[in-house]
Amino acid sequence: MCQLLGMNANTPTDAMFSFAGLACRANEHKDGFGIAFFEDRGLRHFIDARSAAASPVAELVKHYPIRSDCIVAHIRKATQGRVALENTHPFVRELWGRYWVLAHNGDLKGFAPRLHAAFRPVGDTDSERALCWLMQELSKAHASVPTLEELTLTLAELMPVLAGHGSFNMLLSNGQALWAHASTKLHWLLRQHPFGAATLADADLSVDFAPLTTPGDRIALVATEPLTVGESWQAMVPGELRMFVGGLPAG
Amino acid sequence: MCQLLGMNANTPTDAMFSFAGLACRANEHKDGFGIAFFEDRGLRHFIDARSAAASPVAELVKHYPIRSDCIVAHIRKATQGRVALENTHPFVRELWGRYWVLAHNGDLKGFAPRLHAAFRPVGDTDSERALCWLMQELSKAHASVPTLEELTLTLAELMPVLAGHGSFNMLLSNGQALWAHASTKLHWLLRQHPFGAATLADADLSVDFAPLTTPGDRIALVATEPLTVGESWQAMVPGELRMFVGGLPAG
Repeated sequence: MCQLLGMNANTPTDAMFSFAGLACRANEHKDGFGIAFFEDRGLRHFIDARSAAASPVAELVKHYPIRSDCIVAHIRKATQGRVALENTHPFVRELWGRYWVLAHNGDLKGFAPRLHAAFRPVGDTDSERALCWLMQELSKAHASVPTLEELTLTLAELMPVLAGHGSFNMLLSNGQALWAHASTKLHWLLRQHPFGAATLADADLSVDFAPLTTPGDRIALVATEPLTVGESWQAMVPGELRMFVGGLPAG
Repeated sequence: MCQLLGMNANTPTDAMFSFAGLACRANEHKDGFGIAFFEDRGLRHFIDARSAAASPVAELVKHYPIRSDCIVAHIRKATQGRVALENTHPFVRELWGRYWVLAHNGDLKGFAPRLHAAFRPVGDTDSERALCWLMQELSKAHASVPTLEELTLTLAELMPVLAGHGSFNMLLSNGQALWAHASTKLHWLLRQHPFGAATLADADLSVDFAPLTTPGDRIALVATEPLTVGESWQAMVPGELRMFVGGLPAG
């Protein structure tokens, strides 16, 4: 199994503190890591088949304050697919003139969908197959770019098909919104005014967000396990799909 | 105009020396940079809308010995499209289960092809439009994955269409081969046994490749302007398309 981290904010925010917390778990999840940062429509995509505990790319991410309003990160413990760059999450495809990014924690058994020409896996993970199939089904369901609410409705129809093959905890983003689907384990947190201090659950590291934020800032975080202590992380229930936009859960 | 750097080798090789040479030219070409490294089918893609002279991502690339057999890099001086991450080369798409990477130096006037659903630009450069159109035309021309020689023949038919809109110096790779097309300016070099020392044209930096290589190693480099002095760079002629495989020019 792997560990997921997602962030959606109403103002570009760096994720150095949260990523440092995720990277603490890389001793067990040592088969690569990846993080994707949206900046408007643009995307930075950092991956390494080395552990986030040892990778120079992870060091860069921990210390370079990249500000983004949508982030998807993953540390990998391989279940399907060898340890290789092409099997490292998150995976990226383009649809409707936007990049789409997916990271997956879980294991899909016997998931071998018919994939047409437009989206084909490069590696051999169940997770990249899931992204290709989702892109194909979204493009079949909508002739042109749908609203975020319509996308959520379509995704809500597609998630059970994937989860029917095993466990499918997922983060998906196109830069406009972050979708989180829980199959077995996923938690989320809303960080907003009044901001206080937070301490990592896995390391002796604290940050006081008060001097770093303004009262209007809102940040939603999603993670496999709560990343901090003393903040009110909420567990998602199996089968739950939640969209985050502007730093808030929708609906 | 921008500056291109491509590398194709028969053994995974780091490009720190060549990239350092390219980055010396970033004072004039300060509107972002990018570099893509293939590792087998996998791809690392580093981009920054900041200059390669100032970007922490460029610092990482200069000092982290990422070994690859196919590299495409670019430093940008914006002509079309604002300075933004989504307009930063190289651009990436997936076709036939492989990533394809393109970087462009030049300027296409009035290039507004009909693009079907499968490949759409995310940003607003002529260069990303060119990649989308190339992917579309390659997928129309071949029902399934063609040989590299067939791909070269199809690309040779498509290049004049692009170059007919202006200047199109291009590097394209799918990890199996590197294609270089010259419209106005592009040079290439074959570095092979017996290896000697090379000195950057733009900086007081030399490397003796002899102790770093084995007699069987072959590395082909392609760059807008020769990156080193004392090596026999060859100028490509306008309209020339050349494929490099296993560190050698084909044909």
